[in-house]
Amino acid sequence: MQKFTSLDDFRAVLNGFNGPDGDAVSGARDRNLQLTKPPGALGRLEDLAIWYAGWRGDARPHIERPQVIIFAGNHGVTAQGVSAFPPEVTAQMVANFQHGGAAINQLATVAGAKMDVHALELDNPTADFTTGPAMDDQAVVDALNIGWQAVDPNADLLVTGEMGIGNTTSAAAISTALFGGDASGWTGRGTGVDDAGLALKTRVVETALVANPDRDPLEILRCLGGRELAAMAGAIARARVENIPVILDGFICTAAAATLHQASPGALDHTIAGHVSAEGAHRNLLQKIGKEPLLSLGMRLGEGSGGALAIGILKAAVACHSGMSTFAEAGVSEG
Amino acid sequence: MQKFTSLDDFRAVLNGFNGPDGDAVSGARDRNLQLTKPPGALGRLEDLAIWYAGWRGDARPHIERPQVIIFAGNHGVTAQGVSAFPPEVTAQMVANFQHGGAAINQLATVAGAKMDVHALELDNPTADFTTGPAMDDQAVVDALNIGWQAVDPNADLLVTGEMGIGNTTSAAAISTALFGGDASGWTGRGTGVDDAGLALKTRVVETALVANPDRDPLEILRCLGGRELAAMAGAIARARVENIPVILDGFICTAAAATLHQASPGALDHTIAGHVSAEGAHRNLLQKIGKEPLLSLGMRLGEGSGGALAIGILKAAVACHSGMSTFAEAGVSEG
Repeated sequence: MQKFTSLDDFRAVLNGFNGPDGDAVSGARDRNLQLTKPPGALGRLEDLAIWYAGWRGDARPHIERPQVIIFAGNHGVTAQGVSAFPPEVTAQMVANFQHGGAAINQLATVAGAKMDVHALELDNPTADFTTGPAMDDQAVVDALNIGWQAVDPNADLLVTGEMGIGNTTSAAAISTALFGGDASGWTGRGTGVDDAGLALKTRVVETALVANPDRDPLEILRCLGGRELAAMAGAIARARVENIPVILDGFICTAAAATLHQASPGALDHTIAGHVSAEGAHRNLLQKIGKEPLLSLGMRLGEGSGGALAIGILKAAVACHSGMSTFAEAGVSEG
Repeated sequence: MQKFTSLDDFRAVLNGFNGPDGDAVSGARDRNLQLTKPPGALGRLEDLAIWYAGWRGDARPHIERPQVIIFAGNHGVTAQGVSAFPPEVTAQMVANFQHGGAAINQLATVAGAKMDVHALELDNPTADFTTGPAMDDQAVVDALNIGWQAVDPNADLLVTGEMGIGNTTSAAAISTALFGGDASGWTGRGTGVDDAGLALKTRVVETALVANPDRDPLEILRCLGGRELAAMAGAIARARVENIPVILDGFICTAAAATLHQASPGALDHTIAGHVSAEGAHRNLLQKIGKEPLLSLGMRLGEGSGGALAIGILKAAVACHSGMSTFAEAGVSEG
């Protein structure tokens, strides 16, 4: 079952997004003021709980079924030597995810989340975007559909993560194309290239921008993205129509999400930023889409790791909101 | 069973503290370098896991039995009008803790921690320290003993929290006495006093410093502290001798801990800062004891709430460290 047959189909879905449930938001705000704590004393946890309540349509919600989805893809641009790791590592890490040995497996377990892995045509890398579009229309639409279909409609929270050697180069190119500025400002060391590698990577991004001049946000996703980035975009969109709040992960996830933000204002209102990574451009990118990260722990792994780590924060926020007694219930003076 | 009969007994224990297990630290460092991720890609999670391994004496540790202990006390200084809440709220909140209705109950549950509550002579507030010491020798030693005995030696992680109307004034006075500077720099709004209340609170701290001139750190704890602060200090010390790492909570917990740091260098090496609170002086206090907080979410509730929220971060760090496959195990290229 294919949901989309063209990028314009997907664009129409983005433009038809609804907002949060106003009754649930106001009900959650009222409840928050009655809980046994000084007003505002739980800080951002209070805002998180009210935000979550709004998107779930429930003034006193619970988080019981988080889903972490990892999408993996390979990138033709690795032929330019942009990564410290060989492209074979993408498939090796997919096997590691499937056997439970990666960081994200442990993080999903700690968070009580189920985890799904989707490897997207690893033997068929996207085209090298220094000479033309990474994907044709069919390829990007296929990836969007895979992401869309990967979301469990019964989940009550989603984290999208990725694995793909070369994909910080893709994210840097997308960011530069979406928001302008010098490629050097959006290009970082990824998994750990040296100074010469960073200079090369920056030149590769500059070349890619020239080779792919279209600045429509979804065309940027097609021309400079990769299958795993498009799949994340599809999953984030699906979560919106299923009333499933999303925690964004790091630089690559955020770059994929930013194409939705630029394509349709408010398209990321059901998402929060789980963390800010050590990849320097991530903080700038979060500012461009108006997100304040929950965590800042120097992580730069991808895989959904920062998003999964933030699940515990959101769970805690919602547990306080929905589980605490009110002043009246507890017989506590309001001061 | 009383462990201590005088403050000097306690001082001797502080001065006899051991360091972490060097073999476990080096074993954990070696293991970290072999895990299936780029070196350093988990950021602070890697440092946390190695730190935890060292204090547990196990290069591949697990966190299975966290304990949260809440100590509650009342303060004679509330007669000066330093809090937005009446002192009766201390006992009301203790009842709320016991019935499961407070924020910390929800946070402990999400963290998988057991929670214990110790109310310390709530009907017998400490003396108003604007006219002399808050506690005599017997009172502070009793509170240290209660804290010492409250720690479960089978716990593998400890969070100490507190409840006590008026205790941000105590923490501000302790901080000023320990580290100098103007009282205004260490005095904040606590649960929410207004501008006039803040000015009053600052004058109360200034008066307290004059009325209690002894600058020995443990004497500062006795003269300007409260029973719940001394109990937290006792619990943090007990955790050290039981090889139980500790996550510090907010301003009041950190002020109690800082008396140990000033009394004996390295006395807090088995502790980390769970968060930095919205109480402005907390960040300065953490800098004085050399701690970088894990979380910064604008919380200012106390109760151990910020420490308990950080349990999930530490659990995640240790789960990655001990649960991930090595490159050799997973057959992943090291780049």
